[in-house]
Amino acid sequence: MNDFSMLAHKRRSIRDFEDRSVQESLLKEIITESCLAPNAQNSQPWNFIIVHNRSLIRKLSDESKKNILERIDADPGTSLKKYQEILKIEEFNVFYNAPCLIYVAGPRQVRSLQVDCALWACYFMLSAASRGLGSCWVDLGADIRDPQLLKEIGLPQGYRIVAPIIVGYPKRIPAPPERNTPRVLKIVS
Amino acid sequence: MNDFSMLAHKRRSIRDFEDRSVQESLLKEIITESCLAPNAQNSQPWNFIIVHNRSLIRKLSDESKKNILERIDADPGTSLKKYQEILKIEEFNVFYNAPCLIYVAGPRQVRSLQVDCALWACYFMLSAASRGLGSCWVDLGADIRDPQLLKEIGLPQGYRIVAPIIVGYPKRIPAPPERNTPRVLKIVS
Repeated sequence: MNDFSMLAHKRRSIRDFEDRSVQESLLKEIITESCLAPNAQNSQPWNFIIVHNRSLIRKLSDESKKNILERIDADPGTSLKKYQEILKIEEFNVFYNAPCLIYVAGPRQVRSLQVDCALWACYFMLSAASRGLGSCWVDLGADIRDPQLLKEIGLPQGYRIVAPIIVGYPKRIPAPPERNTPRVLKIVS
Repeated sequence: MNDFSMLAHKRRSIRDFEDRSVQESLLKEIITESCLAPNAQNSQPWNFIIVHNRSLIRKLSDESKKNILERIDADPGTSLKKYQEILKIEEFNVFYNAPCLIYVAGPRQVRSLQVDCALWACYFMLSAASRGLGSCWVDLGADIRDPQLLKEIGLPQGYRIVAPIIVGYPKRIPAPPERNTPRVLKIVS
């Protein structure tokens, strides 16, 4: 196995963290390295918000839960429906009490925004794992609408959060989730 | 620099390939490794189409160019407009005469399809680079609608191509594109 293979096998989505903060300088090193990710037209539409404040992280979790529950009520056929029960549990923190939350965001009108930020996030999760940190993309934490909270995190108007990523030192490394055999639909020689 | 840092710095988007095909077994090794990518709910919605046939790759390029040009005609305000001139050049192959093209695709109704496939593609590009191969996500090659061509590549009804990725042995490694200093909008301590 080469080095990347080992890292790909080692990286896990981490949802259980030590009660220990992540140094700002280390975070910035990882964020900078992740900007080496491929992206459309080298436009690098990614922007970052870093939240260490646990009470704010909690408020962001509550806000996103509330908004997603409203979306489920408005459209009971949505695929979000499967999260309804867990989102109703008041103590449930979508960010799993992580010591740090990073939002990756960019201008809504950028056509490639979602894909570019996903590629950035992929590099981030690998780069963090290569340094002994754990992370997880928490899609349930992206639905922030409250003007006061948007101001607190400094999201500019017209920007969209693509990926909320929690990061910290793993307390427990979960077993690898099972993977299917790749579904190759066709090979044309 | 750790191993991932070196790989992140080494990987480039490659658009100039040696006239040498990629072994099927090596491709499958990379495809399988890339399925270790994180994805929503471990749903792994990714499916793969592998095209080695250069005349089919050329036809897919022509089809996608034609369709994107039609979209530009129908909506001159689109951000695709900037590609109009190059797409009109008959000899221009959006796949840069690569020896192999991989389509990553999945069911349209999967909410996380685009992001999951982007994360898969990210692993693929890194895994390929770690083995000395070059690759590039070619968004201009995704717009395939002709029923005969869709049949030739075996795309099931209701599936959407997320990422067309070309892969081969690099003839020339381009200089690294410049990267901006990360834009950190706010740090909340």
